[in-house]
Amino acid sequence: MSEAPELPNASELTLEEKASLTSGRDFWTLKGIDRFGIPPIMVTDGPHGLRKQTGGSDHLGLAGSVPATCFPPAVGLSATFDPELAARVGEALGVESAIEDVAVILGPGINIKRSPLCGRNFEYMSEDPIVSGVMGVGLVRGIQSKGVGSSLKHFAANNQETERMRASSDIDPRPLHEIYLRGFHRVVTETQPWTVMCSYNRLNGVYTSEDPWLLTDLLRGDWGFEGLVVSDWGAVNDRVVGLPAGLDLEMPASNGRTDAQLVTAVRDGRLDEKYLDIAADRVLDLIRKSLARPAVDGPLDVDAHHALAREVAGRSIVLLKNDGGVLPLSPSTKVAVIGAFAETPRFQGAGSSQINPTRLDTGLAEIRALADGEVAYAPGFTIDGSGDAAALRTEAVEVAGAAEKVVLFLGVPAAEESEGFDREHIDLPAAQLELLDAVRAANPNVVVVLSNGGVVALPFADEVPAILETWLLGQAGGGGTADVLYGVVNPSGKLAETIPLRLEDNPSYGNFPGEFLHVRYGEGLLVGYRWYDAKGLDVRYPFGHGLSYTTFEFGDASASVNADGDIEVSVPVTNTGTVAGREVVQAYFSLPGSSISRPPRELKAFQSVAIEPGETATVTLVARRDDLAYWDLRVDGWIVESGTYTVEVGASSRDLRTSTTVEIAGDEPDFPLSLNSSYDEVFAHPVVGPTMAAACKAALAGDDENLLNMIGSVPVNRLDGFPLPRAKVLEILAEVGVTE
Amino acid sequence: MSEAPELPNASELTLEEKASLTSGRDFWTLKGIDRFGIPPIMVTDGPHGLRKQTGGSDHLGLAGSVPATCFPPAVGLSATFDPELAARVGEALGVESAIEDVAVILGPGINIKRSPLCGRNFEYMSEDPIVSGVMGVGLVRGIQSKGVGSSLKHFAANNQETERMRASSDIDPRPLHEIYLRGFHRVVTETQPWTVMCSYNRLNGVYTSEDPWLLTDLLRGDWGFEGLVVSDWGAVNDRVVGLPAGLDLEMPASNGRTDAQLVTAVRDGRLDEKYLDIAADRVLDLIRKSLARPAVDGPLDVDAHHALAREVAGRSIVLLKNDGGVLPLSPSTKVAVIGAFAETPRFQGAGSSQINPTRLDTGLAEIRALADGEVAYAPGFTIDGSGDAAALRTEAVEVAGAAEKVVLFLGVPAAEESEGFDREHIDLPAAQLELLDAVRAANPNVVVVLSNGGVVALPFADEVPAILETWLLGQAGGGGTADVLYGVVNPSGKLAETIPLRLEDNPSYGNFPGEFLHVRYGEGLLVGYRWYDAKGLDVRYPFGHGLSYTTFEFGDASASVNADGDIEVSVPVTNTGTVAGREVVQAYFSLPGSSISRPPRELKAFQSVAIEPGETATVTLVARRDDLAYWDLRVDGWIVESGTYTVEVGASSRDLRTSTTVEIAGDEPDFPLSLNSSYDEVFAHPVVGPTMAAACKAALAGDDENLLNMIGSVPVNRLDGFPLPRAKVLEILAEVGVTE
Repeated sequence: MSEAPELPNASELTLEEKASLTSGRDFWTLKGIDRFGIPPIMVTDGPHGLRKQTGGSDHLGLAGSVPATCFPPAVGLSATFDPELAARVGEALGVESAIEDVAVILGPGINIKRSPLCGRNFEYMSEDPIVSGVMGVGLVRGIQSKGVGSSLKHFAANNQETERMRASSDIDPRPLHEIYLRGFHRVVTETQPWTVMCSYNRLNGVYTSEDPWLLTDLLRGDWGFEGLVVSDWGAVNDRVVGLPAGLDLEMPASNGRTDAQLVTAVRDGRLDEKYLDIAADRVLDLIRKSLARPAVDGPLDVDAHHALAREVAGRSIVLLKNDGGVLPLSPSTKVAVIGAFAETPRFQGAGSSQINPTRLDTGLAEIRALADGEVAYAPGFTIDGSGDAAALRTEAVEVAGAAEKVVLFLGVPAAEESEGFDREHIDLPAAQLELLDAVRAANPNVVVVLSNGGVVALPFADEVPAILETWLLGQAGGGGTADVLYGVVNPSGKLAETIPLRLEDNPSYGNFPGEFLHVRYGEGLLVGYRWYDAKGLDVRYPFGHGLSYTTFEFGDASASVNADGDIEVSVPVTNTGTVAGREVVQAYFSLPGSSISRPPRELKAFQSVAIEPGETATVTLVARRDDLAYWDLRVDGWIVESGTYTVEVGASSRDLRTSTTVEIAGDEPDFPLSLNSSYDEVFAHPVVGPTMAAACKAALAGDDENLLNMIGSVPVNRLDGFPLPRAKVLEILAEVGVTE
Repeated sequence: MSEAPELPNASELTLEEKASLTSGRDFWTLKGIDRFGIPPIMVTDGPHGLRKQTGGSDHLGLAGSVPATCFPPAVGLSATFDPELAARVGEALGVESAIEDVAVILGPGINIKRSPLCGRNFEYMSEDPIVSGVMGVGLVRGIQSKGVGSSLKHFAANNQETERMRASSDIDPRPLHEIYLRGFHRVVTETQPWTVMCSYNRLNGVYTSEDPWLLTDLLRGDWGFEGLVVSDWGAVNDRVVGLPAGLDLEMPASNGRTDAQLVTAVRDGRLDEKYLDIAADRVLDLIRKSLARPAVDGPLDVDAHHALAREVAGRSIVLLKNDGGVLPLSPSTKVAVIGAFAETPRFQGAGSSQINPTRLDTGLAEIRALADGEVAYAPGFTIDGSGDAAALRTEAVEVAGAAEKVVLFLGVPAAEESEGFDREHIDLPAAQLELLDAVRAANPNVVVVLSNGGVVALPFADEVPAILETWLLGQAGGGGTADVLYGVVNPSGKLAETIPLRLEDNPSYGNFPGEFLHVRYGEGLLVGYRWYDAKGLDVRYPFGHGLSYTTFEFGDASASVNADGDIEVSVPVTNTGTVAGREVVQAYFSLPGSSISRPPRELKAFQSVAIEPGETATVTLVARRDDLAYWDLRVDGWIVESGTYTVEVGASSRDLRTSTTVEIAGDEPDFPLSLNSSYDEVFAHPVVGPTMAAACKAALAGDDENLLNMIGSVPVNRLDGFPLPRAKVLEILAEVGVTE
């Protein structure tokens, strides 16, 4: 890259130039300004790979793009619970972007998986905000380490595709902050992404692209974000409203229409030009940063990146079940492979993240590469449901019957899950379930390999000895799957989202996808495992679950507060099996006797650790003090509650092996009394409480004893004479300065 | 009663007189004005009996009151599903009020039972708005037929006791209208109660006592309410705000303080005096109506009203289970009665509705009156948990072992449920459950008789042959219970609320009782059985359930629309047993393929019908067309959707015996297109839809077929060029008058 030109500040630009600079030139590039030598920089889609379009931009640009490595989408990557691995993927994405002269890659997406039906879940990390945030940090750090910008998206509360461009996500303050914003907060404060992408949806009635609270007060004021806010593609509803709210850049091009609106609004006095200066300066800053990118030599090392994609794929796979040691396969085992996905892999989702991969592994070819003998194959079904299902099934059953073990590839057809629309159910196609029944009747040693972007119901879980959840694993998913099947890689992926027994059990059921352009997040804080635990519901596989070919034993956990106020949880973990493996050690916090409502337990720290057989690793997890805070509506802010927290440590949210406690000195906000305080609140006050309690007891003497119970919630300014005359109340409260 | 004086209009009063008239004189009387001969009329508590205090008013007036008949509280009465019976109770309440010169009796309470934990559930009707409304209509009609006013309460959305005076019930429009307001709407429009009592709580952030939308726009504007709005006792937060919002009368006395605030506000110009005229005129109207009450001769016919109380009690009992015909008891059966509630009945709830009964039946005495031989008794436990539980249990086991059958009275201690606070669990005390286990080990023929204001978990349901749910049944509950036990009355009560397996299954769990003074009604429309059905959850006993000593067979249902547009559902019901009995025939509606979200089925009509053995009654239920309407956020109003509705008819919500369909010509509102319409909405338009669809298809030709799916929800004013240039969109929409 040539030496970067000296760019002007916004103040040197004309009104029209500033307006022009704050919207796209076309689908993928920003506008330059020739007279200052400002070049049109490029941004491209792709949280898990570069989607740089070839030729001019078409529509949404879903046509051809330059070949790029398709890494496992977020649904896979997050199952590694390993931010270091995410950072390595980010670095690779940064390198590929740099080679292609792409300034900003549009990702990661860290929206919470509220419902398994969300069509875009494959692009998101988890139902848990800590996992989403930590993994997002890893990716952004990696990308930006190469001088390429990331775009943290979709800010915020874009948790479904249905009516995504108009619907309002109606969320109460605690879940909004504690669940839906917490991950964004972490990534912004820890990495300063170059850009944040506002979402399509409205949040509590306001388009996020027009929300000054979200884009300015919170993001910049409270969180200290220093980068640029870009609209999701087409998210601008009213740019004259959006710009002062904090929307710096509209994408894609409005072909001059909205630029002219800004100019007119400034001239009419409806819009303060300073907002245009601010936005234009942020665009110029972004261009400056991108021009400063260190040179990266091409061409792309396709082999190295494919190898990384395979490594990550293997790490992403979750071994849900493995009875009787049916896995790993031995190369000498006579294996039959069944299922069309073995040959035609589902390796990525549809929509804006769709990559043109440099290569594409298939499970079938990679299994054959690792097996000693011949590996028979039958498709068993067609992915689009066409063809003669019965004939395909018959063929598959024959193949299955002749083998020692069957690897059966099942999955969700691509047509059923995509950006742009949500799923309507979480069932595998009937033809696949019928095939499964027929195959296992012929051969009970069935290993089910699942390909799906969102979780699916597994009604057959008790009927097969082994299940591998392989999500969508990118271009090397076939190799990663074969590696795990044959034990080349010992599986260590964990569920970053619960697999429920039934869709109806999901917390959003009945409130998803909403109607009349409103979606009530009625489950509040109880998203994902928080709900299943609070309700005491059985699940198919719990959050955090994932097996290994070895076994791990947990010693006693201990926890202490370090110098930063964060909580360090230590636990010795021993690999008690015979092969090397990885365990994702998880620490769940709770606070018995809390004054607020809380889920039974919440993941606050985790660590993926490799342990050799027979070795013991002392694993230290760090839970940030900030992550113990809840959002308090009285102060409209975060509070860490004081108390003795329980820390449960284990291998999944329902496989907790050891627990300890830690004493936290919390924040102690002052809530002054007022005439609207309740008797209970006054009773609890150190100064006037005893006086008030004595006065009430005297006044109620001789009455039913339930009365004292009944008045507890009565504000002291009500019911003159019950139990105390108003004058008496005022007299008592005067001592703490409360007057009419 | 002497001839009523000619009362003035508000315009003849001074400002101070008007202010004075709109708040109470003390706890129970309004103020009069001597110079006009306006007398201080009295209002008293008591939805199920008169609670007229003796002597001066104390605190909440929870001290002594004149003896009055304690009829079954709403929890019992509603289980009859019989508004005619409710009307007879209402008439009796009216007579007792008239004898005591009480102008208005403060009831009925028809708030929805959102959670079984609500401490005041015993005063409310049902988890269903149709049952609540229909039963409320019966009571109000009866009361007001005697020239006594009722006070429909608590308006609105007061569904818990925790922080009831400050918390906001945060409810979305559909559940607010379809669930929480629907019953009030019915009672107001069908009966014109003399008064409506506003609730303590806030609704969506606004105190109901200060909510002009609720008290004026909706209640008077939309519903045509002509009476007076009185505050719940102590519900006034800011009277200067409340008065113009539609709060006519503050109770109890503010001792002049808030009257003076009104006067000052008028003088300062902060309050338009016209609002004071309106409120004072309404108070004068109420006084006029009460003075016109027809004379009723005392004294109270205690026997007749006690007999009515016993009849209603018998009708209120729900036979939950009766295996092997263990019930009814024969007079000659050697029965043991166990459980302290047999001797010390829980017959009413604590708080403002607490009656000083004219008599009090006990179950034990009434059983002994109906049994031929001796009836042994052992308390088995103490209600307050004191005493030697083991010794009491041992004694009870001995008594049980010596009998043929055991009638075991269990229940919730009064200290655990009351107005003023909520329950924390739904379990019977451990000592009672231990007693049950011990007793049934000694004698398996156990009939459990439950006394409770809110439902309780029944973990023992599968272990005992019979369970009678007797709620709180008023002063003759003992007699009513004995009548049902011995078959003097054939039970016909039905559950007006679901008995869940576990508290955690309840839809409000996790959102009850809220915190930080906000309660999110996150379950939306899915209250009560609507939730259990939508989620496919097992329950202990479903809504509408209740057995009989006879059996009923349902023929084929048919349904048609009558001249009023209401739906008449006819079904032949045959008493196929050997004794006379009553069935509550229930009609549940659903609309397959509805364009909105709906619970699987909703009760829309019911009818209690007495049928002689061997006889067939053709039962006709009328579902009001209005009750099929849903609240549409696009029009902010009710809409009846067109379509073929399914009508399921049966003996409970999960014992549906026959079904039919009915074609409804619904409302067809016009939703004009705009530039914010989505492509899907434009595609569906009869005029421009085809043109738009053709244009989009042409533009997308050659692209991925998922694209058309993806653009469906895109508003046409976004993404210039995808799929159509903005100019083309405008050109197409111009045909229906849509322009920039």
